[in-house]
Amino acid sequence: MKFRKIVNDPVYGFITFDDELIYRVLSHPFYQRLRRIHQMALAHLVYPGAVHTRLHHSMGAYHLMSLALNELKSKGIEITADEEQAAKLAILLHDVGHGPFSHALEHVLIEDVHHEEISLLIFEQLNKEFDGALNLAISIFKGTYAKQFLHQLVSGQLDVDRMDYLTRDSYFSGVSEGVIGYDRIIKMMTVHNNELVVEEKAIYSIEKFLVARRLMYWQVYLHKTVLSAENMLVKILERARMLAKEETGSFSSSAVLDEFLRTTQPSQFIKTSLNKFCELDDYDVLSSIKKWMQHPDKVLSTLSQWLLNRTMLKTKLQMQAFSQKEIQAMQQKVQEHLSITAEEAGFFVFDGIAENRMYNPGNERINILLKDGSIKDISTIEYALIHKAIDSPIKKFYLCYPRLG
Amino acid sequence: MKFRKIVNDPVYGFITFDDELIYRVLSHPFYQRLRRIHQMALAHLVYPGAVHTRLHHSMGAYHLMSLALNELKSKGIEITADEEQAAKLAILLHDVGHGPFSHALEHVLIEDVHHEEISLLIFEQLNKEFDGALNLAISIFKGTYAKQFLHQLVSGQLDVDRMDYLTRDSYFSGVSEGVIGYDRIIKMMTVHNNELVVEEKAIYSIEKFLVARRLMYWQVYLHKTVLSAENMLVKILERARMLAKEETGSFSSSAVLDEFLRTTQPSQFIKTSLNKFCELDDYDVLSSIKKWMQHPDKVLSTLSQWLLNRTMLKTKLQMQAFSQKEIQAMQQKVQEHLSITAEEAGFFVFDGIAENRMYNPGNERINILLKDGSIKDISTIEYALIHKAIDSPIKKFYLCYPRLG
Amino acid sequence: MKFRKIVNDPVYGFITFDDELIYRVLSHPFYQRLRRIHQMALAHLVYPGAVHTRLHHSMGAYHLMSLALNELKSKGIEITADEEQAAKLAILLHDVGHGPFSHALEHVLIEDVHHEEISLLIFEQLNKEFDGALNLAISIFKGTYAKQFLHQLVSGQLDVDRMDYLTRDSYFSGVSEGVIGYDRIIKMMTVHNNELVVEEKAIYSIEKFLVARRLMYWQVYLHKTVLSAENMLVKILERARMLAKEETGSFSSSAVLDEFLRTTQPSQFIKTSLNKFCELDDYDVLSSIKKWMQHPDKVLSTLSQWLLNRTMLKTKLQMQAFSQKEIQAMQQKVQEHLSITAEEAGFFVFDGIAENRMYNPGNERINILLKDGSIKDISTIEYALIHKAIDSPIKKFYLCYPRLG
Amino acid sequence: MKFRKIVNDPVYGFITFDDELIYRVLSHPFYQRLRRIHQMALAHLVYPGAVHTRLHHSMGAYHLMSLALNELKSKGIEITADEEQAAKLAILLHDVGHGPFSHALEHVLIEDVHHEEISLLIFEQLNKEFDGALNLAISIFKGTYAKQFLHQLVSGQLDVDRMDYLTRDSYFSGVSEGVIGYDRIIKMMTVHNNELVVEEKAIYSIEKFLVARRLMYWQVYLHKTVLSAENMLVKILERARMLAKEETGSFSSSAVLDEFLRTTQPSQFIKTSLNKFCELDDYDVLSSIKKWMQHPDKVLSTLSQWLLNRTMLKTKLQMQAFSQKEIQAMQQKVQEHLSITAEEAGFFVFDGIAENRMYNPGNERINILLKDGSIKDISTIEYALIHKAIDSPIKKFYLCYPRLG
Repeated sequence: MKFRKIVNDPVYGFITFDDELIYRVLSHPFYQRLRRIHQMALAHLVYPGAVHTRLHHSMGAYHLMSLALNELKSKGIEITADEEQAAKLAILLHDVGHGPFSHALEHVLIEDVHHEEISLLIFEQLNKEFDGALNLAISIFKGTYAKQFLHQLVSGQLDVDRMDYLTRDSYFSGVSEGVIGYDRIIKMMTVHNNELVVEEKAIYSIEKFLVARRLMYWQVYLHKTVLSAENMLVKILERARMLAKEETGSFSSSAVLDEFLRTTQPSQFIKTSLNKFCELDDYDVLSSIKKWMQHPDKVLSTLSQWLLNRTMLKTKLQMQAFSQKEIQAMQQKVQEHLSITAEEAGFFVFDGIAENRMYNPGNERINILLKDGSIKDISTIEYALIHKAIDSPIKKFYLCYPRLG
Repeated sequence: MKFRKIVNDPVYGFITFDDELIYRVLSHPFYQRLRRIHQMALAHLVYPGAVHTRLHHSMGAYHLMSLALNELKSKGIEITADEEQAAKLAILLHDVGHGPFSHALEHVLIEDVHHEEISLLIFEQLNKEFDGALNLAISIFKGTYAKQFLHQLVSGQLDVDRMDYLTRDSYFSGVSEGVIGYDRIIKMMTVHNNELVVEEKAIYSIEKFLVARRLMYWQVYLHKTVLSAENMLVKILERARMLAKEETGSFSSSAVLDEFLRTTQPSQFIKTSLNKFCELDDYDVLSSIKKWMQHPDKVLSTLSQWLLNRTMLKTKLQMQAFSQKEIQAMQQKVQEHLSITAEEAGFFVFDGIAENRMYNPGNERINILLKDGSIKDISTIEYALIHKAIDSPIKKFYLCYPRLG
Repeated sequence: MKFRKIVNDPVYGFITFDDELIYRVLSHPFYQRLRRIHQMALAHLVYPGAVHTRLHHSMGAYHLMSLALNELKSKGIEITADEEQAAKLAILLHDVGHGPFSHALEHVLIEDVHHEEISLLIFEQLNKEFDGALNLAISIFKGTYAKQFLHQLVSGQLDVDRMDYLTRDSYFSGVSEGVIGYDRIIKMMTVHNNELVVEEKAIYSIEKFLVARRLMYWQVYLHKTVLSAENMLVKILERARMLAKEETGSFSSSAVLDEFLRTTQPSQFIKTSLNKFCELDDYDVLSSIKKWMQHPDKVLSTLSQWLLNRTMLKTKLQMQAFSQKEIQAMQQKVQEHLSITAEEAGFFVFDGIAENRMYNPGNERINILLKDGSIKDISTIEYALIHKAIDSPIKKFYLCYPRLG
Repeated sequence: MKFRKIVNDPVYGFITFDDELIYRVLSHPFYQRLRRIHQMALAHLVYPGAVHTRLHHSMGAYHLMSLALNELKSKGIEITADEEQAAKLAILLHDVGHGPFSHALEHVLIEDVHHEEISLLIFEQLNKEFDGALNLAISIFKGTYAKQFLHQLVSGQLDVDRMDYLTRDSYFSGVSEGVIGYDRIIKMMTVHNNELVVEEKAIYSIEKFLVARRLMYWQVYLHKTVLSAENMLVKILERARMLAKEETGSFSSSAVLDEFLRTTQPSQFIKTSLNKFCELDDYDVLSSIKKWMQHPDKVLSTLSQWLLNRTMLKTKLQMQAFSQKEIQAMQQKVQEHLSITAEEAGFFVFDGIAENRMYNPGNERINILLKDGSIKDISTIEYALIHKAIDSPIKKFYLCYPRLG
């Protein structure tokens, strides 16, 4: 009997794996690590159902890739068995380079390496283990393969990654308004000059997809309490990194996290110690935070206690930047209230920018195949909702600070 | 034990009726007639699940009204028991004046009376039967009651009517993209100066609601095959009316429909014969069409056969008006092919306009309660999606014609 | 490009038709007639959402057949392209012989012909029109084809017909407890000696399926108000048949229904006038009932008014038969109250039996493929819920009678 | 404006907290700890969506409690505001005594203390902090309060705990067959002699509930791979406890887990160190397992590596006990293959019993209020599915062992 594994997925019903190489990659510790990385970092502090993992998201994106490839094949687009396997591998591994709580580590622990670069490093290491079986997948992932549409399905304005994460994040958070018509969009996909295009009658579904994404950003991913939580996490790790370098002996709860906190050249370190990177996950960070609740450093212990017990910093959101005066006044107050230094107060009071744009025609495009056979970017179609006028990014400024007294 | 009836609803779970007057209205033949009027007319020819009824929709809108009133009361808005009962009655009966296949009858059989006027006539007749118990409901329905927000819940840009029909039509048609966050919008409602307003944080849900509505219009209600079917229905009734006046004896399948087809003053007739109007429903019209399949008039019998057996006229949609030349050329072709007169060909070849606007700030408004306590129309909020730029109506021109040979 | 039509279905998302012959059958007036026959007859009087049609159910069963055939093929079971097409046609047409309100007509208008016999007659007529293209489908439908499992998918204890109607009736009625794991059951299907079997690990899903069916019967299909409505419909048609034979001229609202009411040999008539049968649908019957509301016969007009306006007969359900004494006493009361004859009172007061069994091991079987490779009927597996002890049918006795005064 | 917090829940839409005391309890670190305890322990290794937390489940059970209390009040059952608050607190805290991975800790770390006892200890400590405000809640939780039905809603055959976990576990795991009609069951609840009873017409919904539970047990909670994972976790902790006592210095990844592993009197320790218990969660255990992957003890490191990387022990399930001979033969093989002692082999090869019963009439009862006003246990109703014959527990025997070679 043919090889087949079936996984229950509340979002799509069942996900089928019927290729042994793919299943071996799925079973690899590097991939299994994604079980221990939350897809939505700390959003579950606001949306308690949002505790699903990057592993689950990757499986879902893989499932949509299978649907999309079947769709294209049924329309006569040539896709070989090798290309199909490779495209599925590319999407399965697209997030494998994410570190603990994805974003926090990206900007703090690793600093100057993007998770997609790390995905590629891991991809290549796996390729060695699997004797070159991932060559084609890597080429699709990097976008160097001639059939561009395969890469666009992995990474583009309308890729299966986005379609899965919107659908899945909506399902688990319970924000039903994030629901998109992924099945309809997939049914309307086709290929023109090796590029992914979508039939004109899908236009309302795509608008719906862009509006749903906009809603998910502002209502969920950039929700002010989520912003607060994720910024607290960043501050904790920044503080930890400062202190770790000053201390000897075990600092965090795991040896490998200690190494990451102490290295002076993170981007170099990750290349030479990829296996160590692949030991890190949310558990290292959260267990360390639990440990740090007792740390003598007031900044580290206070922020750790607050985050763990969900005593969040307050967040103020507005359309204009906060004045330095306002920020400094608040820092001053906190400094006095907590008896800390001005520099330390900066860990409790800080501003930032949340930004999201609905559609970026200058960058990635959604190409529509019109009934007359011509191709247009969606933003240039006269009756479409998405016009130049509204494609500029929206910026909101936020200020975080503790509730005093 | 308290009076209570529970109705299973796949959309909301259960709908509870716990007021005897309301239940008596619900049990009245005028209301029960709505069981025999499709909510979405002939859209089920494209979306086979869309066979739900106006009765079901009214019950759903009643349920949302119950939720909304509870929400407002929990926020301290004063709503008396009488007002609550009246608002529920107003929404329950808001569609009671719809005729068979709603739109066809509105423009053909009744011509110059809007269904809301007929709803009011029926409302008043019921009020007599119930000894004035509907006085307050009528006042809310008409918008003359001081607490404007009660009327706005029945009829406004963000009323429970729209919230139910989008949700329900999406559920039954299977167009999942029409899903809106009705529960979230309701949770964010409040009242300011007797007007319904919505808290700022609901802004993305409202955008989502407006985009979902836009999608439902173009993808479902104005789907080109639905346009074709509903125009065929209109043409059949127009032709039937011409012929009915020339014939004596039973013409359609029901005596009351014959009267409607033969009257020369429909708007007068309806006022004097309201009970007869309340005998009409989709069954009279469709059974007549079945009968007309055998009628000697070629136009009537052909269109009737085609509609019943789902042999639809083709529909071409475009952004510019069709030229008279193009239309006449097509009519000419059909005239020859079917051996009919030029006038008769006009029943098979005709153009029209489908129009929908996303938001009309000049007319009805969605008022947002900002965090600072001020009220703004959603179209004037800087970061909102809905701007003056995009609020002009979209018009599409269509041309219907038969598939020849 | 390959032929393909996609239909939106709220239950499964999309249903795809990619075979031109199948689409031609689907477009045939005989199949389109199923649009005008309610899947659940009058259950919508209790469950207002249950207004879906036999056409929609057949499409759904066709979709599940597609899934099941793909599943079996992926397990290495040989199914040729012709067999696949034929099995899909067989399920698409399995209900084509249903008359208006299915059951009422079956027992009243047609009397001694089962709807499956009529399906077969229609099947054969279509086969002539399509020049023998349905030969194999007919053979599968009748169960004479060697690969028995294809017939069992169409009609058996675990066929796609039942799987669709439970799933669909649950979706439209809102009785969420009728939900079954159709996708899981299908994934566990395989073939052994040309018979359909199910892998052992599906056993709980099958139990769930049987319990869901039991629940749907008692809570929905045999709900006491539904029983009342459907019995009223039968009584109306029985009375109409009596009266139609005595009158000349147009009696019901349609000529073809008149013929059916007047024939003395329904089963003969249907064979010689199959096309006439195929003109009948729910609209003929309901429009006639609307007409009969004015009929001088008190029984016919009263029952018609009551049914149309949802003034139901009361229904008493119990585990023991009602005594003749009790029934006669009630008839006596009604006779006096309505000033009618004893015989006429029998149209308002009558008893009956509602019966459903969970599983019938003596008849059709659900064969389980055990891990050790042996096959057992589910009722003989020691840890299963379904045992001989509980497979006897449950009978409930009902008495219908009018609310007086 | 009244106090109110709304939480998005994908299962019920929104959960509303409108009582300040309840919200303070919810915000307490003891309650927030439940965020870090998986509701379904390691079931997510088979059902990747099943990563929801005990916090989310408790919130859901609280929501159902709110619905049930409203329902009973609307039926005229007297429930005071204090009782309502207390019943909600009781359900919110019912699981607060669960340790990491609930079951593993229960049988290994704590040994002889049941989680409900610990819930009570925590309840009492919180009661002190809140100055006795939880007195009534404790009394309901313990079952000593006169209105027994309040306790039965918290803990009984048909409590809101079970209703939520079946519904929620089904939602997150994607096993749609676990869906129950919680809303219908709640609508049918009433009180008789201070006991919770259910109206007769809910009988099919209750059967459905019991069958769904049975299915969830065998298909999910006791799925053989889940059994394997959870037994591996137990073995790891048993081994860790042996080794921890022999070593000095930091053993696990957290100081408090070390204390638990080293105490010789766990049940005593927990009473004297309740705060320490409340520091423990899944993160301590899983981070320790990550650390133990490098431990010199072969048993500990091997099992830790296997569990973390999802290299599961194989599990054989059967209806008869495994013979000692078979077990020993397997242990022998493993002993040789891994070069370990016989005693060590016992950590890799072991048997056990999985057991679940559908309904236990001897213990807790589901009381049905018949139409004639009498009360019967569901198992004694003649037409019910649940009979004495099928209420004996089903036992399945399992044997776990490593894949060799």
